[in-house]
Amino acid sequence: MSYESYFQNLREQHLDELKQFLTIPSISALSTHKNDMNEAAKWVAAKLEKAGLENVEIHPTAGHPIVYAEHIHAPGKPTVLIYGHYDVQPVDPLNLWETPPFEPTIRDGKLYARGATDDKGQLFLHVKAVEALLNQENALPVNVKFCIEGEEEISSPNLPAFMETNADKLKADVIVISDTSLLEKGKPAISTGLRGLCSLEVTILTANTDLHSGSFGGGVPNALHAMISLLNSLHDDQGRVSIEGFYEGVPELSASMREEFLKQNHNEEELRKNLDLDALYGEEGYSFVERTGARPTLELNGVYGGFQGEGSKTVIPKEAHAKITCRLVGDQDPAQILERIVTHLESHVQSGAKLIIKRGEKARAFDMDPSNPMLQKAADAYEKVYGTRALFTKDGGSIPIVETFSRVLGAPVVMMGFGLPDENLHAPNEHFNLENFDKGLLTIVEFLKQL
Amino acid sequence: MSYESYFQNLREQHLDELKQFLTIPSISALSTHKNDMNEAAKWVAAKLEKAGLENVEIHPTAGHPIVYAEHIHAPGKPTVLIYGHYDVQPVDPLNLWETPPFEPTIRDGKLYARGATDDKGQLFLHVKAVEALLNQENALPVNVKFCIEGEEEISSPNLPAFMETNADKLKADVIVISDTSLLEKGKPAISTGLRGLCSLEVTILTANTDLHSGSFGGGVPNALHAMISLLNSLHDDQGRVSIEGFYEGVPELSASMREEFLKQNHNEEELRKNLDLDALYGEEGYSFVERTGARPTLELNGVYGGFQGEGSKTVIPKEAHAKITCRLVGDQDPAQILERIVTHLESHVQSGAKLIIKRGEKARAFDMDPSNPMLQKAADAYEKVYGTRALFTKDGGSIPIVETFSRVLGAPVVMMGFGLPDENLHAPNEHFNLENFDKGLLTIVEFLKQL
Repeated sequence: MSYESYFQNLREQHLDELKQFLTIPSISALSTHKNDMNEAAKWVAAKLEKAGLENVEIHPTAGHPIVYAEHIHAPGKPTVLIYGHYDVQPVDPLNLWETPPFEPTIRDGKLYARGATDDKGQLFLHVKAVEALLNQENALPVNVKFCIEGEEEISSPNLPAFMETNADKLKADVIVISDTSLLEKGKPAISTGLRGLCSLEVTILTANTDLHSGSFGGGVPNALHAMISLLNSLHDDQGRVSIEGFYEGVPELSASMREEFLKQNHNEEELRKNLDLDALYGEEGYSFVERTGARPTLELNGVYGGFQGEGSKTVIPKEAHAKITCRLVGDQDPAQILERIVTHLESHVQSGAKLIIKRGEKARAFDMDPSNPMLQKAADAYEKVYGTRALFTKDGGSIPIVETFSRVLGAPVVMMGFGLPDENLHAPNEHFNLENFDKGLLTIVEFLKQL
Repeated sequence: MSYESYFQNLREQHLDELKQFLTIPSISALSTHKNDMNEAAKWVAAKLEKAGLENVEIHPTAGHPIVYAEHIHAPGKPTVLIYGHYDVQPVDPLNLWETPPFEPTIRDGKLYARGATDDKGQLFLHVKAVEALLNQENALPVNVKFCIEGEEEISSPNLPAFMETNADKLKADVIVISDTSLLEKGKPAISTGLRGLCSLEVTILTANTDLHSGSFGGGVPNALHAMISLLNSLHDDQGRVSIEGFYEGVPELSASMREEFLKQNHNEEELRKNLDLDALYGEEGYSFVERTGARPTLELNGVYGGFQGEGSKTVIPKEAHAKITCRLVGDQDPAQILERIVTHLESHVQSGAKLIIKRGEKARAFDMDPSNPMLQKAADAYEKVYGTRALFTKDGGSIPIVETFSRVLGAPVVMMGFGLPDENLHAPNEHFNLENFDKGLLTIVEFLKQL
């Protein structure tokens, strides 16, 4: 039976299984979901076992468990390590979801749920592709290992140690990760670069109590004013980051990279319309794909302080909070950038306001040469299924573990994504377009066969 | 008999009556207390009647009733309108009350109950002072009118219309309000100014969805960045409000006003320590009491957008919110200030960000010249009873109804308070120091006699 027919026959069953996976609220960031994390890990392990994988193991870590499985019966053939993650992002603001995040629903050929595209849906494709090969051919064309973690959305604190301890077990000729996107519908892409990351939380404290804005307004510091003025100092009028030394290690865009970006033929006007924006935004002299693929940025992810209820409350807040992440490129050192931000904040905070900084994640940027044969074979597989060759792109996001995989295991990493850029990952109404569910299964089968 | 002896003889009886008043849970904000509101209004009416007032009326309104009474038998003498309110604030958090809010208890010479100082206790003094004058002298030295409302704690929505409809009935030469505080124990004060107020809520919208800060960071507007930059434009580096024309109508502090402020002998270092602040804050060239009493201010009461949960979330928020109130002084026109803020916001908002503004409350500042003979007579009365002349102060808060009384009835307003600043009004364990209960009765008698 052709793989098209095979997957067509089992489509409902596969979607039901995936929906079951998506009902588990495996939010790694929230400690209240500890049990859900274990349930999701067990679910993945059971599916790998059922698919025909061997030595299926659930490795406890200091955080959430890592699921390992293998099928090593193709001597002389390359070994493929498939990485994915069963954890998902938090879901707030809940009221903006059209259907609840953990009640998967199909509308207009799209599967809506938290994790549908990032990354439960995509890692599920690999399990079912391997199962299909085993069912149809009773063997795999290559050796396969799975390494599925539950802490990607909180920066994989325990995976690097696991990787180093188990470097022999995980040894592979290529690492495959499906946690990225096509360029757009029908236009596959292989990401050859990821931005690095560093994050921090900033708190400002003023008085030891909220104060009445009538009796005290104008005479005491307001934590929100101090925060606003401090955060405003982080960017200049052109939206460039104002922190001293921030742009050190950022490579100039070469002519060939600019050409690669141009090939994407990215439609900025369409993006602007889709997002309902008056205008896109960013550093002058760069296109959208260059800004997000090859330039660093500092973003406020959350700011809050004072009264948020209905109506007004005449209060002078005693504290204010901000959550900040930077995306980094080239040789920017996340640890150094973090310290430069801290230095900037400390020297710019208004007198009378106390500053508390909590340093967060750190990850280096990652880059691969598109001429690598593994990347070329992935592009071939996409071409066969999608009818168009995958473009080599730079992704604005960060998958810190990619750089770690590449460094620790010394193998190329193929980022073979099946999401779409507008699938609301990390936002309400996350979904996965089922066209790429179908084509993803075929592309993975094709890739494994071509290796 | 001296008034000291008179009040001493009747002290227990008066306190018992006040306690009875304080057992009525007349919380105007909660519709479940509708009956209690009517009961409290009836209680006030009955006491006025018993005191010897005439034409006692309970006027229904769209909300809670207004109680009116009069005693007009002193031809050629001034008419005094006494204002007070029988409604009280809500009582939560209940668990923080040492004794239940509607079970009045005396401890250490203080009467504990919701409304003890704000304003049942204080308005009760006026009823008993008038009763005493009628009992002792069979006549009043002036004409007296009472106007006691039940909606002060919910911004007096129905009083202005009542005032305008009944301007003739309420006509007076002076309005007396006992709903404020001494400066501290033994130090009487008459507030000659209240700041005005205007408020607004600001929303900024960018994309139609939250976006992943990896895929989009650096290439799209961030609602929080737009909000931060916009809010930052509201003040200059010295903390002064940057809105064009904001300071129009703000009077320069005259030498005599500065002297009046100096007399308060306010201890800034003690305030700083109590609030656990590194430093107080505000416009250069002004003391704390000047900043809060005689200078306008624009304060952020709440700002929020993006992720507020535990840890970090790599999101570019699509919306951000701010709640703002201004305190106004002198001739600043709240409606005009509001429009100037709107104009400023509209012209400073970053391109690509949509601005939504919701206009809120508006109230003019209120100012009286301390040399007004009515205020001087009140100071005389305090001096006679307290042994120290009342200071003329400016209050940083806003009591919109004071300005309305003054404007509609065209008479001076004497804010003759007998509370203390630490009597927990609007908080658990509200109380009224009985030293000021005793002295308050005598001060009011003295004042009415001196007019």
